[in-house]
Amino acid sequence: MTSLLIRNVVHNQKQTDVLIENNTFSRIAPNLNTRTDNVIDGSGKAILPGFYNTHSHAGMSVFRGISDDKELFSWLHDDIWPREARLTSDIIYHATKFSILEMIKTGTVFFADMYFEPQVILKAAAEMGIRVAASHSALDLFDCARCEQEKRKTDAYLNCPHPCPEITAKVLTIHAVYSASPELIRYTTETARKNNMYLHIHACETQKEVDDCLSQNGCTPIEYLDRLGALNEKTILAHAIFLNDRDIELLSRKKVRLCTNPVSNYKLASGVFQFQKLLEKGCIITLGTDSMASNNNLSMLEEMKLCALSAKIQSMNPTAGAAEEVFKIATRNGAEAFGLNAGIIAEGKLADCILVDLNNHFLVPNYNLISNMVYSADSSCIDTVICNGKILMQNHHILGEEEITAKIKELSEMFRN
Amino acid sequence: MTSLLIRNVVHNQKQTDVLIENNTFSRIAPNLNTRTDNVIDGSGKAILPGFYNTHSHAGMSVFRGISDDKELFSWLHDDIWPREARLTSDIIYHATKFSILEMIKTGTVFFADMYFEPQVILKAAAEMGIRVAASHSALDLFDCARCEQEKRKTDAYLNCPHPCPEITAKVLTIHAVYSASPELIRYTTETARKNNMYLHIHACETQKEVDDCLSQNGCTPIEYLDRLGALNEKTILAHAIFLNDRDIELLSRKKVRLCTNPVSNYKLASGVFQFQKLLEKGCIITLGTDSMASNNNLSMLEEMKLCALSAKIQSMNPTAGAAEEVFKIATRNGAEAFGLNAGIIAEGKLADCILVDLNNHFLVPNYNLISNMVYSADSSCIDTVICNGKILMQNHHILGEEEITAKIKELSEMFRN
Repeated sequence: MTSLLIRNVVHNQKQTDVLIENNTFSRIAPNLNTRTDNVIDGSGKAILPGFYNTHSHAGMSVFRGISDDKELFSWLHDDIWPREARLTSDIIYHATKFSILEMIKTGTVFFADMYFEPQVILKAAAEMGIRVAASHSALDLFDCARCEQEKRKTDAYLNCPHPCPEITAKVLTIHAVYSASPELIRYTTETARKNNMYLHIHACETQKEVDDCLSQNGCTPIEYLDRLGALNEKTILAHAIFLNDRDIELLSRKKVRLCTNPVSNYKLASGVFQFQKLLEKGCIITLGTDSMASNNNLSMLEEMKLCALSAKIQSMNPTAGAAEEVFKIATRNGAEAFGLNAGIIAEGKLADCILVDLNNHFLVPNYNLISNMVYSADSSCIDTVICNGKILMQNHHILGEEEITAKIKELSEMFRN
Repeated sequence: MTSLLIRNVVHNQKQTDVLIENNTFSRIAPNLNTRTDNVIDGSGKAILPGFYNTHSHAGMSVFRGISDDKELFSWLHDDIWPREARLTSDIIYHATKFSILEMIKTGTVFFADMYFEPQVILKAAAEMGIRVAASHSALDLFDCARCEQEKRKTDAYLNCPHPCPEITAKVLTIHAVYSASPELIRYTTETARKNNMYLHIHACETQKEVDDCLSQNGCTPIEYLDRLGALNEKTILAHAIFLNDRDIELLSRKKVRLCTNPVSNYKLASGVFQFQKLLEKGCIITLGTDSMASNNNLSMLEEMKLCALSAKIQSMNPTAGAAEEVFKIATRNGAEAFGLNAGIIAEGKLADCILVDLNNHFLVPNYNLISNMVYSADSSCIDTVICNGKILMQNHHILGEEEITAKIKELSEMFRN
């Protein structure tokens, strides 16, 4: 057994000690007289849950800032897709590590990813020590031969060794209703159900997606996914912007998890997530950053702030998107969506947490720490990140960060043109 | 004469030296062989203009996080105003220094402030070395006796010694059309004109302000201010959300400077600034953070990001609010609005600048530094801040920052209830 003691840290406005044994918070009480393998001095710091980023494309970090302020079609066709065609496993590996570096710097302990080469993503996450849910993203463009290939890739993923199974959430991924055939959606859904896995899908990101589905299938993407058996409490739908009342009722009743990505939705001018309405209708919301190509960073702090601000302006009601609610969405709701017994600091929960510096100007005055985290904090406030009982960052430093960043500077040269 | 040489810094994608003599960039060229009083190693860093924050209430920093997610009326009446009544000159002084600390940490070199006790604000700015435009904020609530008092306060401000005149922009301030009588607006406007001063006014922040003005005066706040002679190219209007086409034409023709405060406008659910339309109509836009009570930080980096994102989602057009345009608004436009020959890095310009760390993960890859500053950077990227030729922050550290922050922690205790 490994053990770690965090001494004199602020938890719920009181100073306490926090004992981590193996990967679990085992005791939270003042003045614990325990001999442990490792001790962190928590004085001047507060302990909070880390963030659970439920939608990202970590391999796209080599494209940050390469194309902005463009129409979606031109952005994808002229700038992103031609460069994605030049990606290799090796580049995706380094790009994913770099994304994870930025996630840890900003307090994230888990990410659900959707990209190519799941084995490479899992390897990068295992090396960095962060929790991950990543698999092959099933996409056949309604081509029968390709559908069969995609099924084989999904099968292969099931049998692949996970480099660090204790921090890996089991997931299968479907790209979207406009890019995956009903046959592929059915197969992937059924495979996930049989293997007790989560299912991660892009849904209702644009009005066009909804209009096309209505004209081709006579129903919305939500109804279509439901007909194919894809909607249940283990399903995570990314974006979920364009939903009608029937969709919302269905999503609420089936306890489907929604992932909102406000920065990306604003930057691409996709549309505005119906935050307050969905909350009132009982839908379960989680938060994600999407990729560096459409954000352009992976900070859940910035994502929380826009999530709150967007909810207020959308409803012209400053009480919407309250800080406590948004913080819960970014932590506990994200953990629960992937079946993790985590997201709050309590005995018996998985030992995922961050320590924030209470002397950092962004956290002063400290009338309400959660308000400060949602509306004021940036990465400079995050001192320490612990995931599954292991220290990933301490005193703002991650082991090997200089090399990981230098590698991306080098690799990015080949994508300049 | 004092001199400062910044060696081997990236400027416009090329490595160069930058020579500052007194308060001016005097030479920008590689390999300057000059003996100077001080040398900064700029390697691994880029030089950029600092930010010009054209609307703030720095004294409100003691209220960060004390009241969020509330209706405007309850926020002001129940939480903010009763506490403002307890402010003293001493508290405003320390609170303003603390706000300036956060501004410098996030790359700001100038702020236009609107609060009580201008002498105290000017003193705090002089001690921290940041440029400022602050004066008594004229407000009489249509009370004749109070109007006369307010005029005397404006006169007193004219004759008050400025602790650091070389970094002070001369400004007079009118609170708003709903809080200042026409007599007071006329007097302040005329005084500003006679003394060649700038004029800073809250305008059209809420629909109610416009509706009330229409019913009381038969015209919009913009037309009303124009009738009182308050609109010209030395006028800065904060918020300026609710504008009709005639207002916009007037503001464009008279070269009035608008200051948008997107975070505050979203947080209070006031409304959305018509960014792209105003730009297309030839209006001149600048950027401000408003106060820590409605933001809740003073980061122009976060303000730029929401400014860009808001422009896109408002027009449902991802090409709106382009990074280069938003960066210009936050730098050059703000400097020009207050008559400062600054806001760009060029020989002959005032030596205001920041050095950003090109090895910081948020700035990697570096395809487009301006995109990275608008969409990705946070305070951790800002290494050095120079204002008027003087170093205000180096290696992320500001002289005395621990004491300034500790003082606010102490003072904030008295506002808790």
